[in-house]
Amino acid sequence: MTSAYDSNNIFARILRGELPCHRVFETPDVLAFMDIMPRAPGHTLVIPKAPARTLLDVTPASLGTLILGVQTVAAAVKTAMEADGLTIQQFNESAGGQVVFHLHFHVIPRREGQAMRPHTAQMAPADELVAHAARIRQALGGA
Amino acid sequence: MTSAYDSNNIFARILRGELPCHRVFETPDVLAFMDIMPRAPGHTLVIPKAPARTLLDVTPASLGTLILGVQTVAAAVKTAMEADGLTIQQFNESAGGQVVFHLHFHVIPRREGQAMRPHTAQMAPADELVAHAARIRQALGGA
Repeated sequence: MTSAYDSNNIFARILRGELPCHRVFETPDVLAFMDIMPRAPGHTLVIPKAPARTLLDVTPASLGTLILGVQTVAAAVKTAMEADGLTIQQFNESAGGQVVFHLHFHVIPRREGQAMRPHTAQMAPADELVAHAARIRQALGGA
Repeated sequence: MTSAYDSNNIFARILRGELPCHRVFETPDVLAFMDIMPRAPGHTLVIPKAPARTLLDVTPASLGTLILGVQTVAAAVKTAMEADGLTIQQFNESAGGQVVFHLHFHVIPRREGQAMRPHTAQMAPADELVAHAARIRQALGGA
């Protein structure tokens, strides 16, 4: 039982330019931007541009380009945030932890001995998100 | 700073047939088997056959076939375990939560209102793993 794609979810609105984001990476198929409620500093989201609700309804072609985007972004996030490791998470349906119903991978930089912050509804300060996005873009070789 | 691949990690030994596993899916490039310390019933691991320590050192070709295997296995795990959702996790380096240093994706079936079990060192009963593997193989159309 999978529900349909809702084209008014907030990531669809970001993709249409109706909502802002702190963008770090973009290809014709993939967009990456800062999670505004980071579980660790530098927490980044990677999404396909094609509509997909979960891992189960994304086309193989779209999933293939998406995971290469995740890999590229993950390397940059690790470098930019001087992380010791990375936790990748991907949630499907509410029971699986999904909150926004457009497929996305979480890329979370981790430091030795530092737990992830719990999920909260608290937004990070905008200047912190701007600074981290700039560091990650720089690690990606962009401006 | 990424460490080298250790060809004696337990997943490498499973791939060489030196250690057993409860296998659910196999292609020339990908193997999936039950996590023996499941965080929820039906918790399955999907790994590339080619050696890779983390998401950062796997080749794009190997990562592409791996994620399609994850998608295939995820659909079967959800069906077999009658799950409401799925949590996908992938850990890189100790700081990121990695314990076995061969790249792997966790596919964890989730039910509405049921938290994942904490990480423990407790193995699930073998008959439970055998039964879940059989259900997942059946959902994959195998025997």
